[in-house]
Amino acid sequence: MTNAPEILRPASYVYGQWHSHPEGQTLYDAIYGRPVAVISSEGIDFAQALAYGREKGAELRKMTFHARARALKALGNYLMERKEEYYTLNLLTGATRRDGWVDIEGGIGTMFSYSSMARRELPDERFLPEGKVEMLSKGGTFVARHLLVPREGVAVQINAYNFPVWGMLEKFAPAFIAGMPTLVKPAPQTAYLTERVVRDMIASGLLPEGSLQLVTGDPGDLLDHLLEQDMVAFTGSAATAQKLKVHPNIVNRSIPFNAEADSLNAAVLGLTVKPEDPEFALFVKEVAREMTGKAGQKCTAIRRPLVPRHLVDPVIEALKKELSKVTLGDPARDDVRMGALVSVDQRERVRETLEKFRADSEVVIGGQEGDLLGGDREKGAFLNPTLLLCRDPLNAKTPHELEAFGPVATLMPYDTLEDAIKLTKMGRGSLAASVMTHDRAEATELVLGMASSHGRILVLNRDDAKESTGHGSPLPQLLHGGPGRAGGGAELGGIAGVKHHMNKVAVQADPTTLVAITKEYIPGAAVREDTLHPFRKNFDEIQIGDSLLTHRRTVTEADIVNFAGLTGDHFYAHLDEIGAKEGIFGKRVAHGYFVISAAAGQFVWAAPGPVLANYGLENLRFVEPVGIGDTIRTRLTCKRKIRKDLRPGETRPTGVVEWHSEVTNQHDQLVATYDIMTLVERARDEFDPPAEPETASDAPAQA
Amino acid sequence: MTNAPEILRPASYVYGQWHSHPEGQTLYDAIYGRPVAVISSEGIDFAQALAYGREKGAELRKMTFHARARALKALGNYLMERKEEYYTLNLLTGATRRDGWVDIEGGIGTMFSYSSMARRELPDERFLPEGKVEMLSKGGTFVARHLLVPREGVAVQINAYNFPVWGMLEKFAPAFIAGMPTLVKPAPQTAYLTERVVRDMIASGLLPEGSLQLVTGDPGDLLDHLLEQDMVAFTGSAATAQKLKVHPNIVNRSIPFNAEADSLNAAVLGLTVKPEDPEFALFVKEVAREMTGKAGQKCTAIRRPLVPRHLVDPVIEALKKELSKVTLGDPARDDVRMGALVSVDQRERVRETLEKFRADSEVVIGGQEGDLLGGDREKGAFLNPTLLLCRDPLNAKTPHELEAFGPVATLMPYDTLEDAIKLTKMGRGSLAASVMTHDRAEATELVLGMASSHGRILVLNRDDAKESTGHGSPLPQLLHGGPGRAGGGAELGGIAGVKHHMNKVAVQADPTTLVAITKEYIPGAAVREDTLHPFRKNFDEIQIGDSLLTHRRTVTEADIVNFAGLTGDHFYAHLDEIGAKEGIFGKRVAHGYFVISAAAGQFVWAAPGPVLANYGLENLRFVEPVGIGDTIRTRLTCKRKIRKDLRPGETRPTGVVEWHSEVTNQHDQLVATYDIMTLVERARDEFDPPAEPETASDAPAQA
Repeated sequence: MTNAPEILRPASYVYGQWHSHPEGQTLYDAIYGRPVAVISSEGIDFAQALAYGREKGAELRKMTFHARARALKALGNYLMERKEEYYTLNLLTGATRRDGWVDIEGGIGTMFSYSSMARRELPDERFLPEGKVEMLSKGGTFVARHLLVPREGVAVQINAYNFPVWGMLEKFAPAFIAGMPTLVKPAPQTAYLTERVVRDMIASGLLPEGSLQLVTGDPGDLLDHLLEQDMVAFTGSAATAQKLKVHPNIVNRSIPFNAEADSLNAAVLGLTVKPEDPEFALFVKEVAREMTGKAGQKCTAIRRPLVPRHLVDPVIEALKKELSKVTLGDPARDDVRMGALVSVDQRERVRETLEKFRADSEVVIGGQEGDLLGGDREKGAFLNPTLLLCRDPLNAKTPHELEAFGPVATLMPYDTLEDAIKLTKMGRGSLAASVMTHDRAEATELVLGMASSHGRILVLNRDDAKESTGHGSPLPQLLHGGPGRAGGGAELGGIAGVKHHMNKVAVQADPTTLVAITKEYIPGAAVREDTLHPFRKNFDEIQIGDSLLTHRRTVTEADIVNFAGLTGDHFYAHLDEIGAKEGIFGKRVAHGYFVISAAAGQFVWAAPGPVLANYGLENLRFVEPVGIGDTIRTRLTCKRKIRKDLRPGETRPTGVVEWHSEVTNQHDQLVATYDIMTLVERARDEFDPPAEPETASDAPAQA
Repeated sequence: MTNAPEILRPASYVYGQWHSHPEGQTLYDAIYGRPVAVISSEGIDFAQALAYGREKGAELRKMTFHARARALKALGNYLMERKEEYYTLNLLTGATRRDGWVDIEGGIGTMFSYSSMARRELPDERFLPEGKVEMLSKGGTFVARHLLVPREGVAVQINAYNFPVWGMLEKFAPAFIAGMPTLVKPAPQTAYLTERVVRDMIASGLLPEGSLQLVTGDPGDLLDHLLEQDMVAFTGSAATAQKLKVHPNIVNRSIPFNAEADSLNAAVLGLTVKPEDPEFALFVKEVAREMTGKAGQKCTAIRRPLVPRHLVDPVIEALKKELSKVTLGDPARDDVRMGALVSVDQRERVRETLEKFRADSEVVIGGQEGDLLGGDREKGAFLNPTLLLCRDPLNAKTPHELEAFGPVATLMPYDTLEDAIKLTKMGRGSLAASVMTHDRAEATELVLGMASSHGRILVLNRDDAKESTGHGSPLPQLLHGGPGRAGGGAELGGIAGVKHHMNKVAVQADPTTLVAITKEYIPGAAVREDTLHPFRKNFDEIQIGDSLLTHRRTVTEADIVNFAGLTGDHFYAHLDEIGAKEGIFGKRVAHGYFVISAAAGQFVWAAPGPVLANYGLENLRFVEPVGIGDTIRTRLTCKRKIRKDLRPGETRPTGVVEWHSEVTNQHDQLVATYDIMTLVERARDEFDPPAEPETASDAPAQA
């Protein structure tokens, strides 16, 4: 038994101050039922907190995506160094260290993921041009582009009790990258752990003041003060989501309300799977893990395992064996595999639902109390894993409607894949589902059949099992959310999760003005020609629109013959007079690769200079063939610049410069268009790590 | 004066039947106030209509995106041939022929746009893979991709009275492309025109039965019967949007509700503009056009023109002149420039709002009745264009809160760009705004400053004016919607508008299974090797995953020298021993273009065959340098296939085949990776137009 904890006084952090109140709601630990914390939001001025966030948001919006990403990474490192303190509090919530790992390190990992996705996929800017340039007119003088800019309000984030760290960070990270300040409202039961982490986040000094506020306790009249540019992201029960969503202020001001509610997620064991197949064992293991991880308190947990009817008995046998290994008790003990539910109230709710399940199902595993390894059977919130069997699920109601948010699942037999798909859909929209099969056709039929009512589907088989992150794990790169009962929301999903915090606007203008606004060159816009070759400028000197029009070159038969000989590309369109005549060009033409290689020969500056390498190419289209005797020239124009962070150990700071290249012929017809990516030297700047001395002797003699 | 119209009996089309009722609501024409139609939805079983749509949706979902696109185009042509009948009814709504052009041909044009966008940007499939393949593990056995599939419900579309044709078609087209059946509920005032078009759409036989239903009249208990997979798209007043959005069924089932409400759109005349500049005249013309087009009944119309304070008087003078040309009367007359509002009720509402505006503003143009060219001053719904002036807009309320949905605007002076931006935002979220300036820096500051609270911003100046579609025109390619007061919705925006009708799901699997599901090759998935070279197969024979591993080639110094000589690319990294040593590779390396050209030499099949041309290349990355003596080989694998429609006049049916190419060196390191696009012959199929005889003599002698 751990020592009786000191009573915690988790505070709120609003308008730049820590705020607490001596009296409030008492919280109890999940293992022994001892008082663990008192929380209260008494005295907080919620209107002021929101106004403060909106005002301070201007500072956050001044940072670029990359600057925000760097801050997020530094913050992740700061928290990681302090993780053991979070693990200690985690045990009080009833969770094991393994459960806590998902919550704590999973949460911090989400920050790292968003930091690196932002630097890889977003420009070093304050806004994001999206999609292609739309040519709106024949003459090319009227064009458009979509831009995303941060909403100029506060992202109010209302979280569930089950992931006090991850739940906060998976919402905070994308909001922060987008440039929106957060006001987080954790669920009371585990708010002391959230507060502990927020305390470090604020103390780190790595966040611009105002970009994170915390309300521990009742949210009072918070929602009454929301304005049009604010937004709300909610995770919790469907009932609460529905209540908040119709708040008059949210409705009247069209405030985005993202809901993520727990759902009745299915796992389908394929019809082709035999008991001796690896997929059978994977199914059993995954169902057991989902039932017992976090004591089943996960909105993505498997609630409805579906199995071919002839496999019902073998599956029950195997699950019995698997679940018998799950030891219950005080999660501080090494020999405990499963802890407690978050509270005795929560256990009571699960028990009530279990009773209702009996209308359609019978208990086949669990249902009675077993031994405890530490913890208090009465005052702690323990519940043994319980498996029910619903023999006629197509005609049942309760297993598709009610959720026992605990270590409970209902096994259901099915006869055809069509029935299996139908059963998954009877959950009326789910966050996640799994399909265990090694048969690709079966996987395809199940996944496409289930796709319309799920947010994520995992195909688990012998090929991916070793590296799979499992049924229940949302990943930063992938959508987390689901239609219908799952709330209809969308979180994470890579940069999509960032975009939810931004307003999208279509900007229509002439090309030159659109370039000025979006900082990306568009064909047809004015260019800047200079006596200095653009490849002689470094990253900082190069400007969007810097352009070079090359000398001309007449393409000869000798060029084609030599190119074919050198490369080995003897395609008939280049070399075979007879074949080429019947081909789509009606004559021999130059190799496309010759055209772009000769274009490089036209625009390259051969001497060493700031342009280090051409490392990639995009959007290449060969528009017109180049025949023998055609004369080509190339225009190269700076399209886009992306600063690259200097990595530890690297000595040469660089950036990526994208150049738009257009090759034309003697009739000024476009023959090829493409973008090339070059790595270009830049000056060392404030965001680079300090230069290390090259040898020890270069180091100052004294510090 | 046109002849007294026959009373129309517009019906509903539900569960495959035309449904009408002898009694109902009488509608009056806008010009003379004569009864024009009687509508009723009495007797319709709305639950049955929704169930019918959901059931019939399965047929629509069986079509591919391209098949739906072809049907949409054919339908557009069918309607275009019948447009004059719609123009006749259009006059009864108070609209001029020019107004009707926007509604009727704009609506049909939206169908054409969606048809061509779908064929250009979507695969010929029933689902849409989105974004990149996410590599979720180091070993590469666990990957993911997002897929979009049609929602398996009905898209309920509730439209406003002002665009009875466009309003329906701009919602129907993307829903249909997505594979979702539509149930359209037009506003009563102009439902007879909508019904006329729907009648033709059904009669055409070009739509799968059930993909379009129509409810003319009261929607009864329609919303009570919605299910999770249904969705609602609403256009109309903010008040109605708010009422419908909180319908318990919509809330409890997380049914997507897209609202597009009219907003208080601004137009900003730049601070740098002088009265003699073209932008001054463009501003005046655009404001006048937006006030009077459709008699100001457009949700995107300019309601708040903002001008530098010193230009208030010149702008009023110029607007007076411009508006004096606007003749009012019966829109059937050629000399009439502006028709009537939709109804006398609507005029009454506008007059009431005009009264309220007097709290902050004074009338400077209009306000009294002028001459009518036909039409009835009392029974017709005429209202002269009215301009108000609000001298202290930063401290005013009514012009930023109330909307007169008619030919009314409120002019506001501003002093700084910051104030101008602030004033635009006082509209609390708008669909559209304009900025008239030729100064790029001013345009940039205004656009980025206003971006967070607008859905679309037009920069209008001397460079784009000729080709610009104007302030008030939503375009199929661009977002239509706006935050806050504008409803917070998103329509159109190109393929984004299609995606709103689909469910997004993240699919996690091993690469080979993910290829089976998504029909796109992923590096690491199993490939299929064949004795037949893949370039000898036609489009229909080539399978995703067909692969060729080439012979090897050692890259020599001679290759580099010859390539440099032939192309003229003498970059030091290839040719200069001294420079290359100090460069990032530390040695001379082959040209990247040589590597991909030599790779083509390895995989090309030189003789004429079904692969006609390599017309493009994407995603090229040079991963490792190729040095002198390195030995390369290439693996080419079929990644994706896209059938292309045969265009009239074309004789050779083709498709696009994308190949993933990986060039490796003697250490099996990847040196270059890219995708090439080839045009490949395919067999003529049912979707191609019939083959035309090549010469007259080839034609059969007798028909």
